[in-house]
Amino acid sequence: MTETIKPFSHLYWMRFAYQEAEKAFELGEVPVGAVIVLNHHIIGRGHNMCETLQDATAHAEILAITAASDNLKSWRLEKATLYVTLEPCPMCAGAMVNARVQTVVYGLEDPNAGACDSLYHLCEDPRLNHRLRVHNGYMRDQIKDLMEMFFQRLRDK
Amino acid sequence: MTETIKPFSHLYWMRFAYQEAEKAFELGEVPVGAVIVLNHHIIGRGHNMCETLQDATAHAEILAITAASDNLKSWRLEKATLYVTLEPCPMCAGAMVNARVQTVVYGLEDPNAGACDSLYHLCEDPRLNHRLRVHNGYMRDQIKDLMEMFFQRLRDK
Repeated sequence: MTETIKPFSHLYWMRFAYQEAEKAFELGEVPVGAVIVLNHHIIGRGHNMCETLQDATAHAEILAITAASDNLKSWRLEKATLYVTLEPCPMCAGAMVNARVQTVVYGLEDPNAGACDSLYHLCEDPRLNHRLRVHNGYMRDQIKDLMEMFFQRLRDK
Repeated sequence: MTETIKPFSHLYWMRFAYQEAEKAFELGEVPVGAVIVLNHHIIGRGHNMCETLQDATAHAEILAITAASDNLKSWRLEKATLYVTLEPCPMCAGAMVNARVQTVVYGLEDPNAGACDSLYHLCEDPRLNHRLRVHNGYMRDQIKDLMEMFFQRLRDK
């Protein structure tokens, strides 16, 4: 069965975030990937590089935000949507607020560190100076499989 | 009157963070500075560079964490203390948790975005996989003066 994916839909863009997650997987990193989209174009990409760079701040979202800002020559990512395979942690949710990202779309929830819905609602806190729209669940099962494959491989080592 | 500052005390190290904040002030950035200390040595420094780099992730703490990790060749900053003039925002508090920083010492509270005490207690959340000790109030008045001078200068422009 061939699934038809509407161009420029959330699912369409999440596939690019998933491709980034696969790059992290190949590097032996926790497989998380992100892309930032503005006006139907990807303006920044990133995949988790914490082990490769030995830097705990090198999450997919942070690298994608830095890339997008460099691309736009502006720290303000207003009207942009960030797609990420896993629910962002507090650092990344906070970074999206700081960068004024308009919308975040994530695939799989993270009960251990998720800061959009699971542990905190950082993206929708009326006390902070910016709020994002939050959507989730896109490609959830495929992302869950990739995460489980990663942790299974770790255990088998 | 000459104030005696005990070497290697929290106040001693906060003066270096304050010097970093002054560098940000000179650049026209919100004046926040940070240093990371391990075994009586500064292993990373940073001052807010968001406008200069046009990158919302370029807070003092993030730059200091990246510098310290590069220095140690490790993303794990265990046993390190991060000194920062202003209470960290959610992004930076989350980054310190991710980097396993042992202790954070900040000067001035931030009622608008502070995530160590004011709006959140991200550094001491038992649900996350690491917790930091939190101290505050060092050089508070001097830091408050520097912040106020910055915002006064902005209004006068």
